[in-house]
Amino acid sequence: MRVVVFVGVSIDGFLARDDGTYDFLKPFEGEEHGYVDLMARIDTLVIGRATYETVLAFDVWPYAGKRVVVLTHRPLATRRGETTHEGSLKPLMARLAREGAHGIYLDGGVAIQAGLEEDVVDEMIVSVVPVTVGCGRPLFARGAPCTRRWTLGGVRSYPSGLVQTQYARVR
Amino acid sequence: MRVVVFVGVSIDGFLARDDGTYDFLKPFEGEEHGYVDLMARIDTLVIGRATYETVLAFDVWPYAGKRVVVLTHRPLATRRGETTHEGSLKPLMARLAREGAHGIYLDGGVAIQAGLEEDVVDEMIVSVVPVTVGCGRPLFARGAPCTRRWTLGGVRSYPSGLVQTQYARVR
Repeated sequence: MRVVVFVGVSIDGFLARDDGTYDFLKPFEGEEHGYVDLMARIDTLVIGRATYETVLAFDVWPYAGKRVVVLTHRPLATRRGETTHEGSLKPLMARLAREGAHGIYLDGGVAIQAGLEEDVVDEMIVSVVPVTVGCGRPLFARGAPCTRRWTLGGVRSYPSGLVQTQYARVR
Repeated sequence: MRVVVFVGVSIDGFLARDDGTYDFLKPFEGEEHGYVDLMARIDTLVIGRATYETVLAFDVWPYAGKRVVVLTHRPLATRRGETTHEGSLKPLMARLAREGAHGIYLDGGVAIQAGLEEDVVDEMIVSVVPVTVGCGRPLFARGAPCTRRWTLGGVRSYPSGLVQTQYARVR
């Protein structure tokens, strides 16, 4: 089983502004950066509550045919068979592996930070847009000192100036 | 005149650990990442006091033939014709331009953060090593909200897994 993070950030490492908006990423959404390939190789989404609420508001439910686990400690009226999980990610990932999940897409700022802190992330695909925003919600939390090595899988640049790097965790 | 930043960082955006050491960058120092080219096109260094002290301790003074301005508010016994500057960078850069400087290498964590905040940086060359370290001294300070666009000049990956991107500020 492989846990994948796929995110867009500013040069200075922010996923969104302090209020959760991400206007600086929107100009780059028209360009295909591998989201289709990603969705083809994952069968399960583990997503934070805020990201889930955002996606619910879309016209189309983009996760049809995928298992969806929402990370939340508040009750959730599930509409499309989603389940919920509360607390640390390691036991959830162990259970999903036992239940046959192959590819997990871990999404949402808080969820990604938790996944990195718990070291359950096997692969990171980070798309850096050529903008600095000064402040906001960071991809990487400032946590405890640690040294973790990753292997560079590849790097691609796009006409818009977006640079996408792919890293696999060295275990 | 062009003000250039040339730095190495971890994937999570740290220049050094909290104590100022940068062991995680050292394994990549044997690889040539364009430092020689950089030094060939700059005539002036504007560096923070801590970086200056570090460089002074090297066996060889690497800035022979360059003008060096040390950012400090403490007295400095200059040994190689260095001058000092205290306070904001804009007036310094204006003076250096008037005095004929063409290429400025702005170095040192605090100096770079000040330069970015004051928006005097024209070009950033950022080398990301394939390591996360969890905490330390960040390249980008969390400051005031702003939106600044940059043009991607290029991206290169190296056998070690280091990825170097070059950005020019869109004025």
